[in-house]
Amino acid sequence: MITLYTFTTPNGRKVSILLEELGLPYETKVIDISKGEQFDPAFLAVSPNNKIPALVDDDGDGGKVALFESGAILTYLAEKTGRFLPASGPARYETLAWLHWQIGGLGPMFGQLGFFGVFSKEKIPTAIKRYSEEADRLLGVMERRLASNTYLAGDDYSIADIAVYPWAANASTFLGEFLGESVAAKPAVRRWLENVGSRPAVQRGMAVPKV
Amino acid sequence: MITLYTFTTPNGRKVSILLEELGLPYETKVIDISKGEQFDPAFLAVSPNNKIPALVDDDGDGGKVALFESGAILTYLAEKTGRFLPASGPARYETLAWLHWQIGGLGPMFGQLGFFGVFSKEKIPTAIKRYSEEADRLLGVMERRLASNTYLAGDDYSIADIAVYPWAANASTFLGEFLGESVAAKPAVRRWLENVGSRPAVQRGMAVPKV
Repeated sequence: MITLYTFTTPNGRKVSILLEELGLPYETKVIDISKGEQFDPAFLAVSPNNKIPALVDDDGDGGKVALFESGAILTYLAEKTGRFLPASGPARYETLAWLHWQIGGLGPMFGQLGFFGVFSKEKIPTAIKRYSEEADRLLGVMERRLASNTYLAGDDYSIADIAVYPWAANASTFLGEFLGESVAAKPAVRRWLENVGSRPAVQRGMAVPKV
Repeated sequence: MITLYTFTTPNGRKVSILLEELGLPYETKVIDISKGEQFDPAFLAVSPNNKIPALVDDDGDGGKVALFESGAILTYLAEKTGRFLPASGPARYETLAWLHWQIGGLGPMFGQLGFFGVFSKEKIPTAIKRYSEEADRLLGVMERRLASNTYLAGDDYSIADIAVYPWAANASTFLGEFLGESVAAKPAVRRWLENVGSRPAVQRGMAVPKV
């Protein structure tokens, strides 16, 4: 059995989307970070960084696998099933490059924009400007890439798209005040958002967890 | 031939350390980000996100491989050579989890502290406090992990250690004003820094590029 520890955030939804795409049965455990449940010692044993998502697979490669960090979990599930990440060749590393681009760039920078723009009571113009501009730049990198490729890694839908989707979808919703016009001006990003967002597994994964 | 596009930053040095550990011959091309050379169109063709490091391997898996994002490059070189990342089993995913922890957490958060604490002319106490506290928390996660493990992924030195080292070394140097006492209070982190930092390949890799 696979157990997914998650909450209603982009990093959690990456993993539920992939599990839905793969059709793997899984149990969802809600870690309500608005109540500080990520600091529960039992959760710390699974996720040493006190963050969701985390995943435990009793039937893992070489035994029980317990994993934290969404990028590692996506890679694990893709390698377990042989899907959404080529096993070798240039396409494998193109996929990993765009996955890491999300993990190290798009995710943290959109996250900082959310903090300073939405969550923080103190509104600091310099910080909001810094992260709005960086998020807009990152959407521009996506636009250039998607103008000549159907998906981020090339011709095939992959864990790179799955990693980026829940964050990029935020650009016109949760972060729409800062990035809505940036998305509106990027036809390739819009086409990709519609394309990926229309996948039934993506829609099911985005609705996890129910709280 | 392998060509590494890099500069004197932690993300670049991760890759030079791994190349030195592997003993692979490589040519270094300096991309001087202080002069904006990352925006040169020729570099953009290799690195669509306009950042270092990037790597081109003429003798790659399935042909020429051109890669950006340090985490993807480390994974590529480890898989090319079969070293510093187990090919399967729980140890593989433990390594990838800690690699992604650096890529998505330690790196971006230390980077934001560097921006607000060191580079920005405007000193914003709320931002400096936010990133000092988060960086200290991340060092605490490392301390807990290294108190019962020789290396981040467990018993073996891996690309996770190589990814974290140049950033963690910054904590008592470049970011010492904010994090020096945090490191001083963490014996397992200090032991690991000394252990990893004493490796000849790490010392050689940290000296790349010469500018």
